[in-house]
Amino acid sequence: MKQAAYERLRRFFSPHGVAVVGASAKNQWFGNLVGYGLRSGTTVQFFPVNPRATEVAGIRALPSIEHLPDNGIDFAVVMVKSEAVPASVEKLLHKGVKDILLISSGFAETGAEGEAKQEQLTRFCRDNDILLMGPNCLGFMNFSERVNVFAGGSVEGELRSGSIGLVGQSGASSEIIASKLLRKSLGISLYTTTGNEAVITAEDCMDYLVHDTRTRVITGFMEGFRNIGRMKEIAQEAALKQKPIILLKVGRSERGMHAARSHTGALAGNDAVMDTFFRQYGIIRVESIEELVETASVFSRCPLPRGGRLGICTLSGGLCGLYADLCSRCGIEVPRLSERTVTALKTVLPDFAQPDNPLDVTGSGFLQGMGDILKILLDDENLDMIATLSFAPAGDGDALMHRFNEGLFPIARSADKPVVVLSFREMTDYARRYYGENGIYFIEHPQDSFKALSHLIRYAEFQRGLARERLGRTGTSP
Amino acid sequence: MKQAAYERLRRFFSPHGVAVVGASAKNQWFGNLVGYGLRSGTTVQFFPVNPRATEVAGIRALPSIEHLPDNGIDFAVVMVKSEAVPASVEKLLHKGVKDILLISSGFAETGAEGEAKQEQLTRFCRDNDILLMGPNCLGFMNFSERVNVFAGGSVEGELRSGSIGLVGQSGASSEIIASKLLRKSLGISLYTTTGNEAVITAEDCMDYLVHDTRTRVITGFMEGFRNIGRMKEIAQEAALKQKPIILLKVGRSERGMHAARSHTGALAGNDAVMDTFFRQYGIIRVESIEELVETASVFSRCPLPRGGRLGICTLSGGLCGLYADLCSRCGIEVPRLSERTVTALKTVLPDFAQPDNPLDVTGSGFLQGMGDILKILLDDENLDMIATLSFAPAGDGDALMHRFNEGLFPIARSADKPVVVLSFREMTDYARRYYGENGIYFIEHPQDSFKALSHLIRYAEFQRGLARERLGRTGTSP
Repeated sequence: MKQAAYERLRRFFSPHGVAVVGASAKNQWFGNLVGYGLRSGTTVQFFPVNPRATEVAGIRALPSIEHLPDNGIDFAVVMVKSEAVPASVEKLLHKGVKDILLISSGFAETGAEGEAKQEQLTRFCRDNDILLMGPNCLGFMNFSERVNVFAGGSVEGELRSGSIGLVGQSGASSEIIASKLLRKSLGISLYTTTGNEAVITAEDCMDYLVHDTRTRVITGFMEGFRNIGRMKEIAQEAALKQKPIILLKVGRSERGMHAARSHTGALAGNDAVMDTFFRQYGIIRVESIEELVETASVFSRCPLPRGGRLGICTLSGGLCGLYADLCSRCGIEVPRLSERTVTALKTVLPDFAQPDNPLDVTGSGFLQGMGDILKILLDDENLDMIATLSFAPAGDGDALMHRFNEGLFPIARSADKPVVVLSFREMTDYARRYYGENGIYFIEHPQDSFKALSHLIRYAEFQRGLARERLGRTGTSP
Repeated sequence: MKQAAYERLRRFFSPHGVAVVGASAKNQWFGNLVGYGLRSGTTVQFFPVNPRATEVAGIRALPSIEHLPDNGIDFAVVMVKSEAVPASVEKLLHKGVKDILLISSGFAETGAEGEAKQEQLTRFCRDNDILLMGPNCLGFMNFSERVNVFAGGSVEGELRSGSIGLVGQSGASSEIIASKLLRKSLGISLYTTTGNEAVITAEDCMDYLVHDTRTRVITGFMEGFRNIGRMKEIAQEAALKQKPIILLKVGRSERGMHAARSHTGALAGNDAVMDTFFRQYGIIRVESIEELVETASVFSRCPLPRGGRLGICTLSGGLCGLYADLCSRCGIEVPRLSERTVTALKTVLPDFAQPDNPLDVTGSGFLQGMGDILKILLDDENLDMIATLSFAPAGDGDALMHRFNEGLFPIARSADKPVVVLSFREMTDYARRYYGENGIYFIEHPQDSFKALSHLIRYAEFQRGLARERLGRTGTSP
């Protein structure tokens, strides 16, 4: 992405004065726009435009686009009926407003007639340098700038800013993703939906996130790509910057592909070809929203491991067997411990405990504290990362659990291998925040989490391959 | 299981006066026993026995087994060091106490010497008609009778009685299962752990649950079977009574099998042979604790479907694609709607909505109410069950969502096909209880839930196969 194009999008995602054409109390869109603004403490000012209302949601309305102030409006949200859209866009252009979110539906998603309408709109925007998001689109939440122009109604949780970027070709699906990220106490840089993509595409948004310095992990809910060649370049650039791209691409099944096609009209493509493309360019493909959220969480909280061998430490022989099985299913190696580790563990574990991987520390072992055990496992040259026992605290008063965990966290943070925790108790919202504030990845649903760890392992391998290639190209032998 | 053996176990699981030999403030076991009693409002009376204490956890202690009252003690929990166990068991026998939970470890799980100790104990119990649970065991919670003799510390949530039986060869793993069942607002009939199984085995407990009329769904966390021939008979009897058996059997992987073997010493067995055995006898095998809980939940809240074709109804095109993909992965058919259904849906959906499966009702469609849509889908002869849109209410005050859901529930309950709900909002504990009280299975984690639904479908197939076999045997042509 050229610097100018990036800057243009950066401005698009950071408006100050936003006209809302068609704002009305009849639907929730305007209320949602204002509501998300309030929730994030935004400085954006909204100007509802409605010829049949003097105010909408308590804000004074203007009768027409012409009545908008000449200065201070740098963005417009359009939610009028599809027939009235072209005239609105034209009037906005005359007012000098060239950044537009088009919420209205009734375009390409409805069939041939709507497709023609959308093509005309695209041409008009291209000809007049208008940057348009949508139609059939919910908008965006720029968490980094606290600028939300978002008409959806389902993003739940504290609007925490952070390093995860999210692009949704499906509004509702991506709202669920955003809510689950926030619930996991993860922060978002920019969340944007793309709707029918008459002008701005998902590829544009991903390209933007690759160049956005606040974004370290890129996620997306995709139904299809508009431009696979462009996506390859984006993936290459992201790989160079070591920013993982994690995509939930629907359309694996015949019915799923059919649904994706009829929804946003994007080309769903041959799924096996898609898999190969993803693998080749280091794009991480996930199968569910939950797996996407866990994978984004692992990548935001863990360094890349040097290899794929996991040490597991828990409080139950049964869980040892279960975790070993789940790791095996997603290709994570759970190797034997080194001789040195076995000897060292014997000095800190009770006699009846077996120094093994997975390791059952037993009740007595756990009561002696986990710090020494964790240090010994981290020293094992057979292990590249560790999943260790923790207890989700129920609240601030849960002193025992706080003390237990806080004995581990400094060791985990200073380790040169990823350390994640396996919480033994039921997870609470309090505990999610607690682990989040401590920068620790916690396993809540082992199957999803081990899958997420397997993505981390494979991405690290992919990056090592790239590094070897680069070395090869510069003529140095690896 | 013979009636006498069943009655003997029934008495075992319903004691009134419980001696606790070795009760001490040094570990949490006695505190946990008393604590779970209090939480369930039990009528069980505990008698701590400790020569070096006058009271434990506020209850007057007796100096020795000989000091126990001659009447009113029908059960003993033994938690003394393994060396002192044989003498304690013998003294209890002299007192007429023949039902014993042995919590102490230091037996077969520690190696050859411990194995010999355990064999001696088994022989002594067999010779003297002593029913012993353990060693290395947490005990049981008889929810139906509110009798808990349970020394674990990790069962969370309201101790709700219900129709799910749970047998855990691993104490800690099964505590997680019990907590998750309770959190899902599911009720338990009997939860029992089995430890090293010196006398009472997991097979005994499952056999008991097959005959226990309060149990309708049997679940278990298994490391290995002691007696596969017995397990076959149990499975056949359960199938005849239409009680599903859902097992998480660890040891799929080499490391998992190793862990299972070294934990309780049960024979882990060849995993592929195990799969065949499970399939042949209609035992449902799950891969994770979460899948077990969802499967138990589906079976307790849904009738068996007549076939495997699912209709899905949601609020987003993207989710349609995702759900179709997830169903395809676990072999659930998502067929086209019948012509009649398409025609009928057109009368209740807005023009731009596509009558399809999965069905995106769109925002406007949803606002018109989902009752009619659900009725139309239930009428489709191409569909055997329906997953329909719902909204998890956040609390009692969430009137809109209550009204929305309560329009659906009567239709769901009176339908002759399973109806489950796909909650669009983040699930809350309030909502889990709410759906539970309404007897509705809710999908919270689609991947686990669709897997659970696929188990329901396959079990229904298995039962239809059995019915055909029976018809064949009685000479009637099917």
